[in-house]
Amino acid sequence: MKYKIMRGVFCVFSIWVWSSSSNSIPCEHTISQRKKGIDFIFHLKIYIDQIPRQDCLKLLESKACLLPKLKSIWKKRASNMTTKKKTCQLPHNKSPLLLQLNPVYKKVPVLIHNQRPVCESKIIIEYIDESWKDKSPLLPSDPYLRSQARFWADYTDKIYEFGIKLNMSSKGEEMEKVSQELLGCLKVLEGELDNEKPFFMGEIFGHVDIAFVAYYHHFYTYEILGNFSLKNDCPKLFAWASRCIQRESVSKTLADPNMLYEATIVFRKSLNLED
Amino acid sequence: MKYKIMRGVFCVFSIWVWSSSSNSIPCEHTISQRKKGIDFIFHLKIYIDQIPRQDCLKLLESKACLLPKLKSIWKKRASNMTTKKKTCQLPHNKSPLLLQLNPVYKKVPVLIHNQRPVCESKIIIEYIDESWKDKSPLLPSDPYLRSQARFWADYTDKIYEFGIKLNMSSKGEEMEKVSQELLGCLKVLEGELDNEKPFFMGEIFGHVDIAFVAYYHHFYTYEILGNFSLKNDCPKLFAWASRCIQRESVSKTLADPNMLYEATIVFRKSLNLED
Repeated sequence: MKYKIMRGVFCVFSIWVWSSSSNSIPCEHTISQRKKGIDFIFHLKIYIDQIPRQDCLKLLESKACLLPKLKSIWKKRASNMTTKKKTCQLPHNKSPLLLQLNPVYKKVPVLIHNQRPVCESKIIIEYIDESWKDKSPLLPSDPYLRSQARFWADYTDKIYEFGIKLNMSSKGEEMEKVSQELLGCLKVLEGELDNEKPFFMGEIFGHVDIAFVAYYHHFYTYEILGNFSLKNDCPKLFAWASRCIQRESVSKTLADPNMLYEATIVFRKSLNLED
Repeated sequence: MKYKIMRGVFCVFSIWVWSSSSNSIPCEHTISQRKKGIDFIFHLKIYIDQIPRQDCLKLLESKACLLPKLKSIWKKRASNMTTKKKTCQLPHNKSPLLLQLNPVYKKVPVLIHNQRPVCESKIIIEYIDESWKDKSPLLPSDPYLRSQARFWADYTDKIYEFGIKLNMSSKGEEMEKVSQELLGCLKVLEGELDNEKPFFMGEIFGHVDIAFVAYYHHFYTYEILGNFSLKNDCPKLFAWASRCIQRESVSKTLADPNMLYEATIVFRKSLNLED
């Protein structure tokens, strides 16, 4: 795969430009506290390599370096924190290109296809599905099944929301309550998995799988903080996740669960939620 | 137009069943504090009358009677309120049918097409577009323009969010700040209107118009509380709204702005935000 990294003046965002000549995908992890669903971007790359070579496609996203720096940023900030009311903010500069392409929200991800920007993760997913349906369908073709895929892809946001709540909960009663809520949502999703079919909407790894598996690297943290076991409590989800991470594109694009756990603990310490 | 009203045991939800033989639409106003974007339901009816007669279509929504009752409910509750921390809750029972059709969120609206439920306002809009594209396109056919329609339809949620904030603001600095934020969002939408085209995405009254005009009956309240004038501050938006309400389907389905204003003032009094 050919790709090129262009770095902007502010060096916070990078653009990946690549063709569809390879099955392998450059791996770059994106961490952002700014927007739920941002993790979608991990998986856009899974599909973009199926797009026709003649199309010019770019993806504007957060810079990879944020993850390794996360702990030191939080550690530094933690020393200035005295109450739980303060929250950590990641420093971010907005590149002129981002401000030009997404002047409304000023947020990544932005997919640039033949010089035209498409913003917002789920809108990008729909755009990819509709633009390259023959090469890369992400949603079923039947309108009713499409509505169901959208419903469940939206529902996975709850995992993110309860995950954030769990990460910021005080140990004891509060954490236990949030953990039960998170587990309840996971069981709802578990109930939607069919033993006969490998993925949420059937045979094809699609919109719901992309939306949901993007949070999978946080599950190690959720299991420890929430004191549950995905394998025991949601065996169908565990099997589904195991199938997903067998896909090279998924395993290569997910973050290291241990590193995310460590970063979360540092974050919790900065909020006086851990000793 | 033939239609039939079936009332359930709990008498809180009603189902409208109708054919596509008429241009007129039964008018029923839905008020819900439970979910942003619920106002979409007003305008689903605009399109549903274009659906083939042989299709069995039902719409599960909140009962019409809530609006007239709103003031008395709030008045009654206001007497029990002493602090701003308490918020008003509308009483609601969930019909067994709703619980059966939308067991995840347990919320209206639910569109039932040939016995299959489709939940969530925007998902219903996409479903109608995809199911009856030839008769009733709500989004453009081009994938890029579809992505833009989705982007701006989502953006209109900000009007709702800032509207709620405005309704719950203390007079003075807080209200002025929220008013400026709301006006800022309105101006962003104003900037997307093309003088040459009657609606947001061009010639056809579609997804963005439906999403946005559904909030229009609140504008009278926003203008008074926020001390701005849509006509003077956003003349293109004002002209667009005037075009929209010329459509019988829109004018018949929007609530009375004066009644919404009165209800809002009663609500504000219950929170000690008005004398």
